[in-house]
Amino acid sequence: MKKLITSAETVVSDALRGFSLAHPGLFVDHDQRVVYRREPKEYGTVALVSGGGSGHEPLHSGYVGFGMLDAACVGEVFTSPTPDQIHAATVAVERGAGVLQIVKNYSGDVMNFEMAAELAQSARIEVRTVIVADDVAVTDLQSKAGRRGTGTTVLLEKIVGAAAEQGHDLETVHGLALLVAAAGRSMGIALASATVPAAGVPTFNLADDEIEWGVGIHGEPGRERQPMAPARELAERLVGPLVADGLPAGDAIVLLSGLGATPLLELYGMFAEVVDLLEAVGVRVVRSLVGDTITALDMAGCLLTVLPVDAELLSYWDAPAETPALRWGR
Amino acid sequence: MKKLITSAETVVSDALRGFSLAHPGLFVDHDQRVVYRREPKEYGTVALVSGGGSGHEPLHSGYVGFGMLDAACVGEVFTSPTPDQIHAATVAVERGAGVLQIVKNYSGDVMNFEMAAELAQSARIEVRTVIVADDVAVTDLQSKAGRRGTGTTVLLEKIVGAAAEQGHDLETVHGLALLVAAAGRSMGIALASATVPAAGVPTFNLADDEIEWGVGIHGEPGRERQPMAPARELAERLVGPLVADGLPAGDAIVLLSGLGATPLLELYGMFAEVVDLLEAVGVRVVRSLVGDTITALDMAGCLLTVLPVDAELLSYWDAPAETPALRWGR
Repeated sequence: MKKLITSAETVVSDALRGFSLAHPGLFVDHDQRVVYRREPKEYGTVALVSGGGSGHEPLHSGYVGFGMLDAACVGEVFTSPTPDQIHAATVAVERGAGVLQIVKNYSGDVMNFEMAAELAQSARIEVRTVIVADDVAVTDLQSKAGRRGTGTTVLLEKIVGAAAEQGHDLETVHGLALLVAAAGRSMGIALASATVPAAGVPTFNLADDEIEWGVGIHGEPGRERQPMAPARELAERLVGPLVADGLPAGDAIVLLSGLGATPLLELYGMFAEVVDLLEAVGVRVVRSLVGDTITALDMAGCLLTVLPVDAELLSYWDAPAETPALRWGR
Repeated sequence: MKKLITSAETVVSDALRGFSLAHPGLFVDHDQRVVYRREPKEYGTVALVSGGGSGHEPLHSGYVGFGMLDAACVGEVFTSPTPDQIHAATVAVERGAGVLQIVKNYSGDVMNFEMAAELAQSARIEVRTVIVADDVAVTDLQSKAGRRGTGTTVLLEKIVGAAAEQGHDLETVHGLALLVAAAGRSMGIALASATVPAAGVPTFNLADDEIEWGVGIHGEPGRERQPMAPARELAERLVGPLVADGLPAGDAIVLLSGLGATPLLELYGMFAEVVDLLEAVGVRVVRSLVGDTITALDMAGCLLTVLPVDAELLSYWDAPAETPALRWGR
């Protein structure tokens, strides 16, 4: 294992220290491992808390800031944050109008956010939860836990963050979150495995001419091993399952994320193929994010997320945001 | 070679097509392979043209837009753009106040920008050039061509872009560019080679416990092969040569870029070490960019650039920018 780290034990705290030095506009509680905005929201607005295992950067800490999250709870690599962390974040950001938890659908995350929600409710903080389970690679037969949560999380944090910023109440914000979570679909492929620092060896092994089709962002097995292919064919393998899953025609926001070790040059080429294929089935790409927005340590490959949108969702998407990883003007 | 591409022959045009779909706010001339702003600058302001080989994305096309470049000329992978491309860009963006060329110090780039400058001058367009040669890995003994141009280019494009946007004349803008180019210093390390698509195999091979210390962004050999080490020691090998080269104490902007296959989690950890080491020698990190800002295809490793700044440079740095890769509010 060759990584720019000090040790597997300290990789998360070291990165968090660097994150806080790089982004002085945010406040990092290093004991609890929670990233906050420095200036809390106006009293009476809904606060957004997310979080999850490390290794998916910029998710989630890179999306804390104006127009997106109020707090991100940072777990160990590929490990859920604890209920205590999440509770601390919830209490800290609550501004009298309730808190929305944004949770990716992994059993540890779901359980710990649920426990934190109970703790908060005991403290008379109203909490609602949205669970993102958008990875169409997982079929019902494969997993009782349901689909994994991946790229839709990024789009949801932006859209719902804008709605919260604009002062909508908890019921409205939660309803919007459920709508986005239900509408987004994702599919990923790996060309090479990530190496979890504590493991020291790749999570899985692929031959030089193989890909993992439908890989999860923690290296979970996909639908099957497939032969490597040119970009157009790989794009078909990403777009096809989304369409088969019921992706409707119409306007959409498309996220194409590298998984950590895939450069922009390749992502842009893939994006061109993806756009062609989507447009051929009547999906019009009205906004896009191409780059590393949700990763899997140093995995090579990419993740495609397509979110159908109407004018309302689009206006939230276009609203200003000011976070380390995603920003546009006010 | 396992890459998300169609073929080595089409990788650049495919990526450029994806880039233009992802960034409809920019205009891409696919024949000439030049990326432009859609809305030209005000008449009477200095225009900025840069460019170089592909494979360093988001450099340069990701820095076209308000507050930074007016045009970026896109070469083949690791290959200079042609004088014709550069001339076309120069003619297109010129707004009556001259054009500044921003060139990284590689012989092909220098020669082709020089020929383009001559063509422009024949067409009565005033052109000035700044050559970035900031890579301290290259010692005078090693290379008559001088130091390679790397990360300072990104910082220069931001700072000088702001000055041009504010309406300073060509002499002032050029003077500022020379100052930044002279002040910036860079040093990189590779943990694994990139693979150039047309070559199909890694440019060099490193053992599991080896790094290339002082690697160039095209995989040029560094100062030497060294044993792999923990983050602090690697950070010392990056910071040490900058200090030895005369990096002064005082305020600085620090860029820490992944080289294409290195995730943010690792970069943030390295950044913490770099900040400690810089502060120990009196360099105060007042602004930073951590992430993939200048890459080398799918090389694993990182590049450190330190640019000493005063209040004037800092105000240009903080001025608004709106480009695909770098943006902050107006």
